[in-house]
Amino acid sequence: MAKTNSGRFFEDYTVGQVLKHAVPRTVSGGERALYHALYPARGALYSSDAFARSCGLPASPIDDLATFHVVFGKTVPDVSLNAVANLGYAEGRWHLPVYPGDTLRAESEVIGLKQNSNGKSGVVYVRTRGLNQRDETVMDYVRWVMVRKGNPDAPAPETVLPDLKTVVDPADLVLPEGLDFTGYDFDLAGEPHRWGDYEIGEKIDHVDGVTIEEAEHMLATRLWQNTAKVHFDATFRPDGQRLIYGGHIISMARALSFNGLANAQMIVALNGGAHANPCFSGDTVKAWSEVIDKAETSAPGVGALRLRLVAVKATASPFALRGEDGKYLPDVLLDLDYWALCPM
Amino acid sequence: MAKTNSGRFFEDYTVGQVLKHAVPRTVSGGERALYHALYPARGALYSSDAFARSCGLPASPIDDLATFHVVFGKTVPDVSLNAVANLGYAEGRWHLPVYPGDTLRAESEVIGLKQNSNGKSGVVYVRTRGLNQRDETVMDYVRWVMVRKGNPDAPAPETVLPDLKTVVDPADLVLPEGLDFTGYDFDLAGEPHRWGDYEIGEKIDHVDGVTIEEAEHMLATRLWQNTAKVHFDATFRPDGQRLIYGGHIISMARALSFNGLANAQMIVALNGGAHANPCFSGDTVKAWSEVIDKAETSAPGVGALRLRLVAVKATASPFALRGEDGKYLPDVLLDLDYWALCPM
Amino acid sequence: MAKTNSGRFFEDYTVGQVLKHAVPRTVSGGERALYHALYPARGALYSSDAFARSCGLPASPIDDLATFHVVFGKTVPDVSLNAVANLGYAEGRWHLPVYPGDTLRAESEVIGLKQNSNGKSGVVYVRTRGLNQRDETVMDYVRWVMVRKGNPDAPAPETVLPDLKTVVDPADLVLPEGLDFTGYDFDLAGEPHRWGDYEIGEKIDHVDGVTIEEAEHMLATRLWQNTAKVHFDATFRPDGQRLIYGGHIISMARALSFNGLANAQMIVALNGGAHANPCFSGDTVKAWSEVIDKAETSAPGVGALRLRLVAVKATASPFALRGEDGKYLPDVLLDLDYWALCPM
Repeated sequence: MAKTNSGRFFEDYTVGQVLKHAVPRTVSGGERALYHALYPARGALYSSDAFARSCGLPASPIDDLATFHVVFGKTVPDVSLNAVANLGYAEGRWHLPVYPGDTLRAESEVIGLKQNSNGKSGVVYVRTRGLNQRDETVMDYVRWVMVRKGNPDAPAPETVLPDLKTVVDPADLVLPEGLDFTGYDFDLAGEPHRWGDYEIGEKIDHVDGVTIEEAEHMLATRLWQNTAKVHFDATFRPDGQRLIYGGHIISMARALSFNGLANAQMIVALNGGAHANPCFSGDTVKAWSEVIDKAETSAPGVGALRLRLVAVKATASPFALRGEDGKYLPDVLLDLDYWALCPM
Repeated sequence: MAKTNSGRFFEDYTVGQVLKHAVPRTVSGGERALYHALYPARGALYSSDAFARSCGLPASPIDDLATFHVVFGKTVPDVSLNAVANLGYAEGRWHLPVYPGDTLRAESEVIGLKQNSNGKSGVVYVRTRGLNQRDETVMDYVRWVMVRKGNPDAPAPETVLPDLKTVVDPADLVLPEGLDFTGYDFDLAGEPHRWGDYEIGEKIDHVDGVTIEEAEHMLATRLWQNTAKVHFDATFRPDGQRLIYGGHIISMARALSFNGLANAQMIVALNGGAHANPCFSGDTVKAWSEVIDKAETSAPGVGALRLRLVAVKATASPFALRGEDGKYLPDVLLDLDYWALCPM
Repeated sequence: MAKTNSGRFFEDYTVGQVLKHAVPRTVSGGERALYHALYPARGALYSSDAFARSCGLPASPIDDLATFHVVFGKTVPDVSLNAVANLGYAEGRWHLPVYPGDTLRAESEVIGLKQNSNGKSGVVYVRTRGLNQRDETVMDYVRWVMVRKGNPDAPAPETVLPDLKTVVDPADLVLPEGLDFTGYDFDLAGEPHRWGDYEIGEKIDHVDGVTIEEAEHMLATRLWQNTAKVHFDATFRPDGQRLIYGGHIISMARALSFNGLANAQMIVALNGGAHANPCFSGDTVKAWSEVIDKAETSAPGVGALRLRLVAVKATASPFALRGEDGKYLPDVLLDLDYWALCPM
């Protein structure tokens, strides 16, 4: 009996299948400190217990994206070990803040399958849930990946395409219990801009850049127990390069967006996202954002901003996203669409 | 309305102005562990709760320099984003140890201004205070930087030069409540040398060296939420090099000084300091110290040593500091003057 | 009086001598998070408090190898600063799990001495114990190193060779109080293989590889306060390379062995080990294991596997260990022999 995990192939998935992912993980102040060392993260709510308490939370939570990475990392051995491409995200929502001491685990349900016309691979749709030690859902999201077939002769499954929303309805956003921005301290948060100061269509160049190092992206990716070998083993790809985990770029761009969006504190939904081009060590990552939409919420003093976050290489032209052919430009790394909470 | 922070220019400062810095930060065992991973720090008081308790403290504090970096990092967006040079430090004192769970914030008061004769820049003096969640001052220090003018035609302010002490008077040192070195365990601390074993004028070569890596200085600098782009973005300087945060060299040199000064446990004052030359990845940092002065204190078994800590590149000649022209030699990186507490 | 530590030479050791090592260290969630960032460690017992509790422990302990590194690091200034070679390990046992908040210190007793025939060096055998803040032994092991003589004319000591077991008898394994694998969750742990699924003689290729980075091995080695300069100072060796701490390879290989040995959860004994060849930055490390022996234990549902763990470079042939001359092949880095606990 082979002892090592060769991953699932396309024919190993069936709609309705529930995958219970290993390995549960308890987070602590260590994960928070590492997040601050790996990314230029400065959101006050995620930096200071005192600030978080002034906003009605019991303490400063772990960064929302750290929660995402911990949950995502668990799915890799079951979902994307034989993936050819990570195609998209939808309907992501954060349901509960995660605090030091919480233990996270993850489950995924297969909600869609479609074999490609070449017969060699297919698209797998999963809805992944992260749960805490009380079996409460802390976040969930849909992801779809292209997975190779192990046996090219395996019959094609019935095509099932999930009906996915292109954006999470503001009415469906889950706000942390007790959240209250009426006493929000803009000085401590770092910028004076309120929800009302942002206009739909407004674009913000976040100015700063970070050059990517092998040691840093590997530390980050391991921290989330994502062990896809392409991120770690320089002998794996013919070109000797280690592909950088897409989530590293998400966190880097989000942290860079502090400069201009310091008060877009809390990510509550992931509407969609594309890893437009691969990133490698030595690339310098910059970011810009666009305000796509705005919504009010039921929490005191709390508004929601729908933001496009774009990560680019330093060579990119300002705010350029796609070429005339409609495809992402070669120096665009990430195009992410999310809802964040902002003081009104 | 521009959303990003372009920093203050020389004409934006006025004497008496108080700058309330973002972003507050709660420290934990994570920051301590990272400090031990980033620097070869071995001071027993900062490594072991049991050792700290045997010295009268409730637990092992965060390294004094970590406290300094957290406070300093907060000042960067308000004080040194448009700085041409970091000119000096004075009158630095640590007032209270910082423990895991404490939340730090920072404020600076502008205490001096002097426009340069070229009319293009000026020197800004600030007294920065770090405060904890109980609004107690944990440390304060004066720093002066040369800042560019945004508008060259802005009128010169009245020159105000603060009256700064060249050394903190031993009588003004603040000792942690309860500190008692009468039961100090020299075996556990790593060296047998007491306060009485050090002589004024004595120089110590700390022997060990550390070669600097990009990933390490960036992890450190981000951890303190110091986001000056020159440290992170390889496309920022024409030579493609990332300038290393001066505080990284301070911590590296201080940690290296364990070998010979293992019992100079606690930094209580920063008398002055100069970043003599820039440091880049690939440089190997070594350190030497000179005992400048000694003083008794009111705490049982506790003496104070005034130390010069010099960081140099591996190519430096032993104990060489300045050339015949009185300027720092090119392989000198740092010249720091501080008071440390040592068992008698 | 020279203030810096030049280390002990062969003639400075006497049989029966007890060395009380500096510096005690309190571990926290920070050390655990860093361990997960530095190594692809996924053992569920060391990742999740909830999982550890389901196995009868009060919380998730610090990785057994982290405990080893903390203890080992303390011995370096007293045992191996002038060592020419780290020759072997024997009779290593873990007696108590270490939890965040525990403070570790270490002591070594010299149990053997043998001067080499060249008269210039000799072999020193020490039994090292790690102790917690309650003076309980958390682990102990024997290590022997070749140490230079400081004075070639110093007389040879009487040769004393300790009588060392080549393997820890399964009856001597110490199991954590309360450990119970009868409710073990194989889904959460990541693999279905039980103790009964492993056969003596079985070999497992762990598939994954990790390319070594300077920043990562230095962060790891510093974290354990192992400050041997050969690991940090690129100017120390004539070839400008920094030698990687052997323990970094032990932890890397052990973490890689998750893929195939996810349920070999807990290391309880170190029977022996050899650092077969040096490792440098840029090398890609892979690992394979061999099941050497199996034993039952007195704890419910808990069996023991005796495993050989071999770390190799990516260029190595499958399962190749020694050449025709009986020597380790040049791309073998580590040959480790240990007992681990596994659900039955």
